[in-house]
Amino acid sequence: VIDLSRLSLNQATVKRLTLPEAVDLCVQYEIGGIGLWRDRVAETGVSDSAAAIKRAGLHVSSLCRGGFFTHTDVEQREIAMADNRAAIEEAAALEADVLVLVSGGLPPGSRDLPAARQAITDALAELVSRAQELGVRLGIEALHPMFCADRCSISTLAQALDVALQFPQEAVGVVVDTYHVWWDPKLATEIQRAGERIASYQLCDWVVPLPADMLLGRGHLGDGHIDFGSITEAVEAAGYDGFIEVEIFNQQIWDAPANDTVSTVKRRFTDLLA
Amino acid sequence: VIDLSRLSLNQATVKRLTLPEAVDLCVQYEIGGIGLWRDRVAETGVSDSAAAIKRAGLHVSSLCRGGFFTHTDVEQREIAMADNRAAIEEAAALEADVLVLVSGGLPPGSRDLPAARQAITDALAELVSRAQELGVRLGIEALHPMFCADRCSISTLAQALDVALQFPQEAVGVVVDTYHVWWDPKLATEIQRAGERIASYQLCDWVVPLPADMLLGRGHLGDGHIDFGSITEAVEAAGYDGFIEVEIFNQQIWDAPANDTVSTVKRRFTDLLA
Repeated sequence: VIDLSRLSLNQATVKRLTLPEAVDLCVQYEIGGIGLWRDRVAETGVSDSAAAIKRAGLHVSSLCRGGFFTHTDVEQREIAMADNRAAIEEAAALEADVLVLVSGGLPPGSRDLPAARQAITDALAELVSRAQELGVRLGIEALHPMFCADRCSISTLAQALDVALQFPQEAVGVVVDTYHVWWDPKLATEIQRAGERIASYQLCDWVVPLPADMLLGRGHLGDGHIDFGSITEAVEAAGYDGFIEVEIFNQQIWDAPANDTVSTVKRRFTDLLA
Repeated sequence: VIDLSRLSLNQATVKRLTLPEAVDLCVQYEIGGIGLWRDRVAETGVSDSAAAIKRAGLHVSSLCRGGFFTHTDVEQREIAMADNRAAIEEAAALEADVLVLVSGGLPPGSRDLPAARQAITDALAELVSRAQELGVRLGIEALHPMFCADRCSISTLAQALDVALQFPQEAVGVVVDTYHVWWDPKLATEIQRAGERIASYQLCDWVVPLPADMLLGRGHLGDGHIDFGSITEAVEAAGYDGFIEVEIFNQQIWDAPANDTVSTVKRRFTDLLA
């Protein structure tokens, strides 16, 4: 049984709202946490965003996102690393629990997955000291294997964890997003192994058929095939006691009135977990 | 270096051809193996298919497919089991190296993945003795995790292998299809562990963006992101010395003249592996 006070609304779920609008909605619906996206933070400004969130009494459960570490082009890589350093500073200013990392896929023309995966570890090694200086925790997110080529070559929780374990626990954790990992036959084992490394727990459902843009094939909790009860139980048993974000990318949900969306998010969270 | 004599054309790659037409094309292009599909076999008739293949001097590297084991409805399940028994008889009549199994996803309304996975093992346990009687080998195919909900809850080679290992080696093996497993960080390890359990090796490329129907997101070897060299090397090192099938589901390829398709299949196989 999860207390409703642990619900956090990821901003992507109400994609059309500005940051202040999303903050207001959280207050209105008595949701205590918010997951932020950097484009919306930039639009409002980092300081004004931090101030608005503080005034509202909200907690920032995550900032999305850093990553895209796999460039082989030297200049592209340096741009990516600078962007990651900026993201770390923003996460610090916003007092986010974690900076979520989408690590990047195969570089153009490459079929060398081991090299891409090594590049991810190498980039993290460069960023960790800065994260530690600012007290920011980096969260490696395993993306669904269908994104392995073009978005993220970290495809399982086991793999994310194996990378995270190479760095200090307070600086690098893993993100468990049900959409990406629900299918994994080793999921329960790996959640247990992750333990205190779990830096974020994100929920949305797997709905079939997926739309043409696979990024948007996510549904409200209960609309798809994921057993949130058993996964949440494993995450709890592993010791995770932080916020639980609902993060849904779905064109129909984005087109719906944001109030309806948040109302549904809260009701489904209550029905399925609380 | 793979000998070109090990190339097999999976019939699905030239989907619009009847079985006799596909057989003729193999002869014309000096391809020694063919992977068959049951709908085309049924259209020609099992005996006539077997005779045509024998006349042409072809070897049947696989028959697709059995499976769909996860029905909870008793009547549906019995229909599926009867169909699997028929498929085993067809595989025997055609002297196919393996009957490929697509095991089935979550039954309607269910979110219980462990139960679906157990149902797959249970169904195999019922079929194995019949397969042994007829000298047919069943091949458990791991499908890409994006098909976990609706087509096949066996999502990794490790998982397929763990199921196969519960049965005699000559009766149950695993199918390694690059499209489904290329992303897996444990792939090399699991191929090695599979060893003599590898009953079939199938190739096609992973092309992004995937089309709206994810089943059709496959490309000619070299058109996508898969490193066929390293995977094939692992499969060889594991001891697999059977046919290597090229199996491509792709609307554009199906719409192309079959001669062009087979010519490309053979050229790419040669360029990348032979």
